[in-house]
Amino acid sequence: MTTSRRAFLAGTAGGAGVLAIGVGAQPAGAAALTADVVVVGAGLAGLTTARRLVAAGKSVIVLEARDRVGGRTLNHAIGGGKIAEAGGEFVGPTQDRILALASEVGVGTFDAYDTGKNVYVRGSTRLLYSDTGLLGSVLGTAPPDPALLLDIATLTLQIDAAAKKVDPAKPWLAPNAVVNDAMTLETWVRQHSVNASGILQLLAPFLEALLGAEPGDVSYLATLAYVAGAGNAQTPGTLERLFNVRGGAQQSRIVGGSQIIAQKVAQALGARVVLNAPVRRITQNATGVVVEADGTTVTAAQVVVAIPPALTSRIDFDPLLPAQRDLLSQRMPMGALMKVEAIYPTPFWRSAGLTGQFLTVGGPVGYAFDNSPPDGSPGVLAGFVGGTQNLTWGSKTPADRRAGVLAQFARIFKDNRFLSPTDYFDMDWTQEEWTRGAPTAVLGPGVLTKFGTWIRQPVGRLHWAGTETADFWSGYMDGAVRSGERAAAEVLAVL
Amino acid sequence: MTTSRRAFLAGTAGGAGVLAIGVGAQPAGAAALTADVVVVGAGLAGLTTARRLVAAGKSVIVLEARDRVGGRTLNHAIGGGKIAEAGGEFVGPTQDRILALASEVGVGTFDAYDTGKNVYVRGSTRLLYSDTGLLGSVLGTAPPDPALLLDIATLTLQIDAAAKKVDPAKPWLAPNAVVNDAMTLETWVRQHSVNASGILQLLAPFLEALLGAEPGDVSYLATLAYVAGAGNAQTPGTLERLFNVRGGAQQSRIVGGSQIIAQKVAQALGARVVLNAPVRRITQNATGVVVEADGTTVTAAQVVVAIPPALTSRIDFDPLLPAQRDLLSQRMPMGALMKVEAIYPTPFWRSAGLTGQFLTVGGPVGYAFDNSPPDGSPGVLAGFVGGTQNLTWGSKTPADRRAGVLAQFARIFKDNRFLSPTDYFDMDWTQEEWTRGAPTAVLGPGVLTKFGTWIRQPVGRLHWAGTETADFWSGYMDGAVRSGERAAAEVLAVL
Repeated sequence: MTTSRRAFLAGTAGGAGVLAIGVGAQPAGAAALTADVVVVGAGLAGLTTARRLVAAGKSVIVLEARDRVGGRTLNHAIGGGKIAEAGGEFVGPTQDRILALASEVGVGTFDAYDTGKNVYVRGSTRLLYSDTGLLGSVLGTAPPDPALLLDIATLTLQIDAAAKKVDPAKPWLAPNAVVNDAMTLETWVRQHSVNASGILQLLAPFLEALLGAEPGDVSYLATLAYVAGAGNAQTPGTLERLFNVRGGAQQSRIVGGSQIIAQKVAQALGARVVLNAPVRRITQNATGVVVEADGTTVTAAQVVVAIPPALTSRIDFDPLLPAQRDLLSQRMPMGALMKVEAIYPTPFWRSAGLTGQFLTVGGPVGYAFDNSPPDGSPGVLAGFVGGTQNLTWGSKTPADRRAGVLAQFARIFKDNRFLSPTDYFDMDWTQEEWTRGAPTAVLGPGVLTKFGTWIRQPVGRLHWAGTETADFWSGYMDGAVRSGERAAAEVLAVL
Repeated sequence: MTTSRRAFLAGTAGGAGVLAIGVGAQPAGAAALTADVVVVGAGLAGLTTARRLVAAGKSVIVLEARDRVGGRTLNHAIGGGKIAEAGGEFVGPTQDRILALASEVGVGTFDAYDTGKNVYVRGSTRLLYSDTGLLGSVLGTAPPDPALLLDIATLTLQIDAAAKKVDPAKPWLAPNAVVNDAMTLETWVRQHSVNASGILQLLAPFLEALLGAEPGDVSYLATLAYVAGAGNAQTPGTLERLFNVRGGAQQSRIVGGSQIIAQKVAQALGARVVLNAPVRRITQNATGVVVEADGTTVTAAQVVVAIPPALTSRIDFDPLLPAQRDLLSQRMPMGALMKVEAIYPTPFWRSAGLTGQFLTVGGPVGYAFDNSPPDGSPGVLAGFVGGTQNLTWGSKTPADRRAGVLAQFARIFKDNRFLSPTDYFDMDWTQEEWTRGAPTAVLGPGVLTKFGTWIRQPVGRLHWAGTETADFWSGYMDGAVRSGERAAAEVLAVL
């Protein structure tokens, strides 16, 4: 194995041109392909890159490690031809690029179910509340916890104001960037809240769902950058747009399930997408790149790597990446997130006047929501188990986890019908070899200001895509599409 | 390549016993070896593990990626048969295990040069001071900066008191562990100092040298754990022992250069150490492990992985590591550290009454010291360029870096003889493929309390060594040796 690998690379070093590289020198048994551009990863970022390049008349090969496309989007069949989303699923206002792509491939959206009351539980406080009406028009999906109301309002205003001064593409240039990047969100909350312990209790399930992390894990500057990214070039990002359903990032869903977008794009790309081809090594020299995957080797002029930064560390680069780029990818760990879903004959909570949404302290699920198909049949209640909850519940047996989740559903809603679903599944993204966590990278203190400039800086013929490299909606499907569009433009400019 | 790899693994899955695994199934051209234990990494941790196992009568193979042993220790020839250490070099009180190993292999120590005055520069403050005398007996190597004296004394006392309550093997169990792990050291300093901005200025070069990081990067709990580790089972760790020369971690050096210890251990292990063998894949099943390196495949009963946690992510494990162990290694990035060294005919600063040590704000070098051989010939002045300084200076041309360092030496010491060394070299550990930074992993907020329990927890037949897994003196040569001794004992208990 090693000998043939070395002979192969020795061969590439002397290659006279792109097409000459690798010819007759690929590892035994590996298919040798050539293209203008090779894309690593067939998630929404990589597929968008490829789609754009093909539209511009370029030849492209997409190498995907999994036996499927879609990356962090995944449709899970729940019977009767219906699906529930096991990965990223929501879209909302200002997420123009995912919405445009969905439209282009003929995929529609529908409103997430949001009629009725949400449930909120923190200690002895239990509230039923709506994001409509007078209070709802101010607080949106945030709970009107009397002990936290003032803090919620003032902290949100302060964060929105600070985020307005942050360019999500270059947060390291923001005012006070170095100081804000040297503290955690938890530290900032403790300094600015009246009821800090209550606010931190509330923030825990929110951050667990949003990032698979806790308020003490993330840099305050990175938090502001995330908020600043919850918009687009015309509309500044706000914290409310991150946490709201109505008018926010959880407003709509994809008809047919979010993975269908990737599937349709891949279908159009046809044989250009090679599955079961984890990339092991990327070699570049003055004349081109050689990307070696299990079973396939591609020679091309440019390469776009569209996978989570934490996974880029696991590819051998020859020559090595600049040290600072490698230090960056060492500092972009994935969040810890699991999705749990219970299926019932009907979404019976709707007739009880409930949206199905809850936000609770104590887990396992921090945030739950109605994830039923567009026609409301069957009923699906889904929830996020993130951060410390993921660490606790991810190591339990599937049976214990199911029991714990269903018992919580019944407890929170005070309705024992939740104990008896017709089906249940969960999807722990930390167990996925080709994602290693979800929903996105968690940026601790010091990373953005010291290493941030490397996040999308090309390295010779090597370009970066993936939602973590997006300016707006990094961490979301929309960010993935934006990053792919940017990477494609970047490559077209040099091809 | 892929085909043979797959066939090989398919073969292992059905193997009837350790010796049967891999026979006749190794990749073409790869040597097939068998042993009781295979050790990954020939740094001090891996070599100590192997030495202990061999002493217990076990057969061992050590696979090393580099063409040399010693890991983060490296002797650099400076002519005339003399060397200067380009990596870890100091030993001191309570570092019993590295001292015992040195003694066992017949290697001696000598006092680091510490006669005369140190130089300290912070803004317009320039001090010459000694770690002897009345003030020196209290402050040790810490500078008696009048504007910071009170803070230095009180913060040191507070940190030492807090560290006494931290078990360096289990810092997540310490009082207030979760709160202390949710803030950076910078945050804690801002909350507890009279002159916080001055203390942070002083801490920057100290942390840059100590960890290759900044006070805003590291968790306060991780800082306490590092301090708690600066001792042994009999003697609690203290901050003073971390920063002092006399009576501290910089007290002594190794005759012949620190790498000689690893070289002597490796020499005794002989052909058991295989160089140029980066490990790509580790497979384990009920009967044994198969470790595939470039050119060599080893079948064994147990495996000890003795490399930095950040590098463990880059090995393919089959079955996958538990998700939480992978999430931990995603969260243990290496520090950014470079060593720069200028060689002069003599250590001329000594006759001027200077130790050669300086601590300065502003870089490139934060902390410098006399690194001359035991006989003081030639003179070697060495310095650390870490953290943000590393990022700035690591991307300059070698000529610019040399000029910047020498100009700083001359400026700080007010002596232009520093501008004209007979030789100069620097070693940027971030550029090293098989280390990816130095001196050790940087623990940001949230890592120890959420993922810390995984740091040395075996995974089936897989055990962990490396200085990052040590209880005492993690990050130091002594920690590496301790970790190897612990891993060897762990393996012997199950062999």
